[in-house]
Amino acid sequence: MLKGRHIIESTDLSLEELESLFQLAERIVEAPQRFSDRGRGKILATLFYEPSTRTRFSFEAAMLRLGGQVIGFSEPGSSSAAKGESIGDTIRTVGCYADAAVMRHPKEGAPRLASKFSSIPVINAGDGGHQHPTQTLTDLLTIRRLKGDISNKTIGLCGDLMFGRTVHSLVNALAQYDNLHFVFISPPELTIPPYILEELGSNTYEQTNDLEAVMGKLDILYMTRIQRERFFNEEEYLRLKGYYILDAEKMELAKEDMIVMHPLPRVDEIAPEVDRDPRAVYFQQAKFGMYIRMALIMELLGLGGE
Amino acid sequence: MLKGRHIIESTDLSLEELESLFQLAERIVEAPQRFSDRGRGKILATLFYEPSTRTRFSFEAAMLRLGGQVIGFSEPGSSSAAKGESIGDTIRTVGCYADAAVMRHPKEGAPRLASKFSSIPVINAGDGGHQHPTQTLTDLLTIRRLKGDISNKTIGLCGDLMFGRTVHSLVNALAQYDNLHFVFISPPELTIPPYILEELGSNTYEQTNDLEAVMGKLDILYMTRIQRERFFNEEEYLRLKGYYILDAEKMELAKEDMIVMHPLPRVDEIAPEVDRDPRAVYFQQAKFGMYIRMALIMELLGLGGE
Amino acid sequence: MLKGRHIIESTDLSLEELESLFQLAERIVEAPQRFSDRGRGKILATLFYEPSTRTRFSFEAAMLRLGGQVIGFSEPGSSSAAKGESIGDTIRTVGCYADAAVMRHPKEGAPRLASKFSSIPVINAGDGGHQHPTQTLTDLLTIRRLKGDISNKTIGLCGDLMFGRTVHSLVNALAQYDNLHFVFISPPELTIPPYILEELGSNTYEQTNDLEAVMGKLDILYMTRIQRERFFNEEEYLRLKGYYILDAEKMELAKEDMIVMHPLPRVDEIAPEVDRDPRAVYFQQAKFGMYIRMALIMELLGLGGE
Repeated sequence: MLKGRHIIESTDLSLEELESLFQLAERIVEAPQRFSDRGRGKILATLFYEPSTRTRFSFEAAMLRLGGQVIGFSEPGSSSAAKGESIGDTIRTVGCYADAAVMRHPKEGAPRLASKFSSIPVINAGDGGHQHPTQTLTDLLTIRRLKGDISNKTIGLCGDLMFGRTVHSLVNALAQYDNLHFVFISPPELTIPPYILEELGSNTYEQTNDLEAVMGKLDILYMTRIQRERFFNEEEYLRLKGYYILDAEKMELAKEDMIVMHPLPRVDEIAPEVDRDPRAVYFQQAKFGMYIRMALIMELLGLGGE
Repeated sequence: MLKGRHIIESTDLSLEELESLFQLAERIVEAPQRFSDRGRGKILATLFYEPSTRTRFSFEAAMLRLGGQVIGFSEPGSSSAAKGESIGDTIRTVGCYADAAVMRHPKEGAPRLASKFSSIPVINAGDGGHQHPTQTLTDLLTIRRLKGDISNKTIGLCGDLMFGRTVHSLVNALAQYDNLHFVFISPPELTIPPYILEELGSNTYEQTNDLEAVMGKLDILYMTRIQRERFFNEEEYLRLKGYYILDAEKMELAKEDMIVMHPLPRVDEIAPEVDRDPRAVYFQQAKFGMYIRMALIMELLGLGGE
Repeated sequence: MLKGRHIIESTDLSLEELESLFQLAERIVEAPQRFSDRGRGKILATLFYEPSTRTRFSFEAAMLRLGGQVIGFSEPGSSSAAKGESIGDTIRTVGCYADAAVMRHPKEGAPRLASKFSSIPVINAGDGGHQHPTQTLTDLLTIRRLKGDISNKTIGLCGDLMFGRTVHSLVNALAQYDNLHFVFISPPELTIPPYILEELGSNTYEQTNDLEAVMGKLDILYMTRIQRERFFNEEEYLRLKGYYILDAEKMELAKEDMIVMHPLPRVDEIAPEVDRDPRAVYFQQAKFGMYIRMALIMELLGLGGE
């Protein structure tokens, strides 16, 4: 039972809680209209201190599809923060108006800080390069739905594994499952940090800079973009961003039932021709993102699983 | 039946489809509350890559008055486009969350491009100086409601006829009707382009730079503003913008049942004193704009005419 | 009966109208869910020509909790005003789409001007340093609910009493009640203007720059922040802003049933340690702000008290 909880990190949920959340999400996936009145009379506040249209849309659509309503801002400029208000005061005031709050913030730790003052559930929708737990929930639900199960897979993660928040959260969450083999694929300058590797539990891993060489053994290929905003140096960014581009030729090396995931937005790292391959599931993944958020909002507001 | 179609240009609808849409719109005008639940459970995305409060409000009010819901952005700054995402990826993602999308974009062709990738209906709400089909639908519905019929009229169009997107779309759409006489009234620097004149079919036209001289013969006077953003040169803009100002004195020359239309916003081209004249229908026109959008959304989403 | 009225200044309501509004608000406070369908089918437009997240959220949540819907903008950049439209034209157009409008504007008098052209009720949500009547209604409802009654109180107002719009409106409204004693607490540079003092009627007042000295006699302490945007000189601002900081030590001097109010956002003028004191009611006050706005919207739209 998650009623009244905050969701700040992807590890805030136990395996049992995850399981229960996924079961609810799957019931929503199968008949979303059955849940179209569960949120009636409830308000979700979307507090975006940095813009992220995709994430905001996903949360807002989730709330609206539950029959609830939304208030919010999508730019720091419109917020009271410009008047020097603390994040604690902001969330306490928002708690007077709304039943739950989603927060995106450029500073690490801001949603955690807000949750300490909040009378309503706070969901972290990304804080700097740190955490974005509902992306992780989205990824896990996608694997579960499309591969039947999360355990016993070979999972490739490709791109910027050093700064990529999405990858770190996902690997941490996957590490709770059994018998996974991770294949970390990145340029040497952007390898996954050692502290992530230390948390893999009984799961195994390998590291490589050669995507083609490992393509054939993957059940799942998780692609990420190389984000300009993580670099101090434009030249460095330009050199690395084209390093791993997934195209139709590389897809020929992959298993027939492999799936290609991506947290989106995608820039150049997946060639448009791959979109037509049925193994490319990144747009389905976005839709699962809305469904898992519907489930999460229902659980946090205690809107009833049945 | 328009279900699932995209509306990118004002000529995307045949005369028969227009007729059916207008009939639905007129039923909405007469009893809007009868339609207040048709959109229940549906979401419209308003994607405004340049601000246009009026157009956005009109679409959002239309959807809300159907009982539907809205997600959206009103400024390019809040969009994922800032992260380098293609318009195709944006619309595919939006299609995961929403049931239809309205797009306003500074670049010509952007809504057309989006529609090619979209799983949901896309409505063009203005692309640069190019097309704005729901404005045209608004204008046609206004004429139909207030003049009984679209054929057999003398229609004056006044102002910037060279760059004025609204006028071009309207003239193209009107050209499908019979027995119209167009009077194009503009300074010599801003006359209507020849390719528009070539498409008038069996209808007739004249061109003049003298508003007063033609005032008495008009059934409809369609005024437009001279838009600063279409000029490279501030001096040129200032010289031309005051060229044709409609005032009470000029209105005395007009027929008693002439109507004055304007797409709004109006700047100086209609003196405020004209607002009190019952022939000034530009605010009624704005209201018809909401009703035609209600009808259009219903048709595109297949929400049932009856 | 307030149906169709505009609310531009806090003195726009008579004592009888206020009384009736508060009675409705109190019925809402006691059972908000009873009113969750009153606004069904209605649309509120929130026109924020300068950002004010808190005020906007309060109005939007009020309308949504009545079952109504909202359209709006939160930044001047998104508005048609950027195209040179007059405020009269804007409100006439908004009146085509919405049933009532809330306006926040940096220029004094803008909401009044808008109301002169408007076919729908206009509520002033702050115009420059001038008026913010729903803040005043919030403050009055808070006093009434938490102190039982508005008359027969000693009310301290502390901070920037010269430029503080909130204080001026509140004092004007309170002056209609009986047997109040005002204690104006400010640095000499920021004393309350004489024209406010002239309107106190039969009520009494004193002025001081010493908060501690008067603390013990207050029934209500209304704190305000010293706003950077009211100063031309950064140095002057920094010197004065720390002048009166309410902390736990000063709270020890106060009556046991005194209440501390604040319009929020708070910066430094109330130490965070005070938040834990049950006499600190500023977050409850924010919640009353939503309820009084629900009552006001119901009255202006004629949505029925019973």
